Amino acid sequence: MSRVRTVFLGTGGSVPTKNRGLPALYIEYEGNRMLFDCGEGTQRQMRIAGLPFMKLDRIFISHFHADHVLGLGGLIQTLDLFQRKKKLEIYGPKGIEDTIDKIITTGHFVLEGFDLEINEVRAKKPTRIYSNGDYSISAVQLDHNVPCLGFSFQEIAKRKFLKKKALRLGVPEGPLFSRLQNGEEVDVNGKLVKPDEVLGKPRQTKKITYVPDTRPCIAGVHLAEGADVLVHDSTFAHDLQESAREGGHSTAKEAAEIAKKAGVKKLAIMHPSQRYKDSKALVKEAKTVFPDTFAPNDFDELIL
Amino acid sequence: MSRVRTVFLGTGGSVPTKNRGLPALYIEYEGNRMLFDCGEGTQRQMRIAGLPFMKLDRIFISHFHADHVLGLGGLIQTLDLFQRKKKLEIYGPKGIEDTIDKIITTGHFVLEGFDLEINEVRAKKPTRIYSNGDYSISAVQLDHNVPCLGFSFQEIAKRKFLKKKALRLGVPEGPLFSRLQNGEEVDVNGKLVKPDEVLGKPRQTKKITYVPDTRPCIAGVHLAEGADVLVHDSTFAHDLQESAREGGHSTAKEAAEIAKKAGVKKLAIMHPSQRYKDSKALVKEAKTVFPDTFAPNDFDELIL
Repeated sequence: MSRVRTVFLGTGGSVPTKNRGLPALYIEYEGNRMLFDCGEGTQRQMRIAGLPFMKLDRIFISHFHADHVLGLGGLIQTLDLFQRKKKLEIYGPKGIEDTIDKIITTGHFVLEGFDLEINEVRAKKPTRIYSNGDYSISAVQLDHNVPCLGFSFQEIAKRKFLKKKALRLGVPEGPLFSRLQNGEEVDVNGKLVKPDEVLGKPRQTKKITYVPDTRPCIAGVHLAEGADVLVHDSTFAHDLQESAREGGHSTAKEAAEIAKKAGVKKLAIMHPSQRYKDSKALVKEAKTVFPDTFAPNDFDELIL
Repeated sequence: MSRVRTVFLGTGGSVPTKNRGLPALYIEYEGNRMLFDCGEGTQRQMRIAGLPFMKLDRIFISHFHADHVLGLGGLIQTLDLFQRKKKLEIYGPKGIEDTIDKIITTGHFVLEGFDLEINEVRAKKPTRIYSNGDYSISAVQLDHNVPCLGFSFQEIAKRKFLKKKALRLGVPEGPLFSRLQNGEEVDVNGKLVKPDEVLGKPRQTKKITYVPDTRPCIAGVHLAEGADVLVHDSTFAHDLQESAREGGHSTAKEAAEIAKKAGVKKLAIMHPSQRYKDSKALVKEAKTVFPDTFAPNDFDELIL
């Protein structure tokens, strides 16, 4: 299996601070490069991290609050200035077309060098919105005060093809091999051969779930089920749960409860209110419910 | 005289680099706080520098290329989030209304807490566009590939009122004093007393001129005349003067020639193309024409 590289480009929320940029999560897998959210300053964070922003394939925007989306304009203009030709895919909730339109027509800019493929996502239940055979992206509507999506990156494990066994079962080498590999049953001289008979064990695949601005919700649990890492909104400590409720956010304790229910391996809490000078208290609180919690800093990386 | 504090918040150009943010120049004088340009990331640069961004009074935008203006949206939204009530003045070239309108209606944002006073500036010759008695701001149209303004901050020196001399000339204490102080001639028992007779010597006042993206032009010279500091576009070294011409920019040598013609005291070159790892060669080139040249880094301060 290939490695999945995750870079926390911006771990703050609402407003940038000295130490935390605005939300942006970078995932690279098998030569595919994607961003989840793109707060103001993301292009600079990518440059500081030395990431190949020219090679971005797709951007997933959770919602249109400024801190999650205002970096798109600068990034797109820079890609155009540097003569990108390749199409860029952008996914986001209802209204993505209008938002992108405003963003890319501000000032004197005219996007000329490449196409944007804009995809409006509606997903009341976790829904696969992209797949290329190597990995898939699923999305679901969360519970914020405006339409807001969570996303899961999921590796698609290829099961090993057991060639000797296939030959033993009488399958001739050739197109029938491919069909079995792709999960189809095939007819061999009147006998049905099933993929499970000629494919190795299903392998554990890697999954990273991003659940930004939201109240704790069952949709987040479903989306995150079994993830290696759940990156979750944790704007407040639980003594400010009223503020979390008012703002459509989660407390550290609530984030940990979601992680526990979803059976994830690790919880990364982000988007702390700027009132917290560091995330120690938030991590401590979350750990009482879900021990394997951490608070990533900007530019921290995870390799799975 | 009060001090004028200038902070170079972003000294890069076109695209942010690891070391240089996008253009923004902060000037503070007598409790007035203003920004010249507001590239993406400016609100964060202000926070890192510890500047009181809530207390900004006015913002002067040179032009609407992304690198000079895309930080406005995030800054305005943050001011609103932090419950600013005071009006914010914004000045910029033709089209400022439309540009601001797009910027502040992107996503779900509705500006509710304070008013924006938007001022469209047309100035073929250096024109005073703001004055409050303590200082004035002048603007002039430069020579870029889109409408682009340069700005001068100029302290207004108050001349000392020579009270004893006024009494000797028969001016009675009271309202006539104020009128003389404000530059009016007054009639004292049929005799005309002129302000120059009762005011001290005119004092040297401080002047800072900001000439961003432009070909070297006479308008820039007029705007900068006698400035303490001229902050000037210097995107390329002179061996790339063709690139400078094509992009509507200046070379280091050209910036130095403008500084020399305008008789300024110091030249600060900024907006280097990202091809230059540092500004040494650009400074060296400019110094052959204008010795008192420097290349500020982000967060450098000048106190005048």
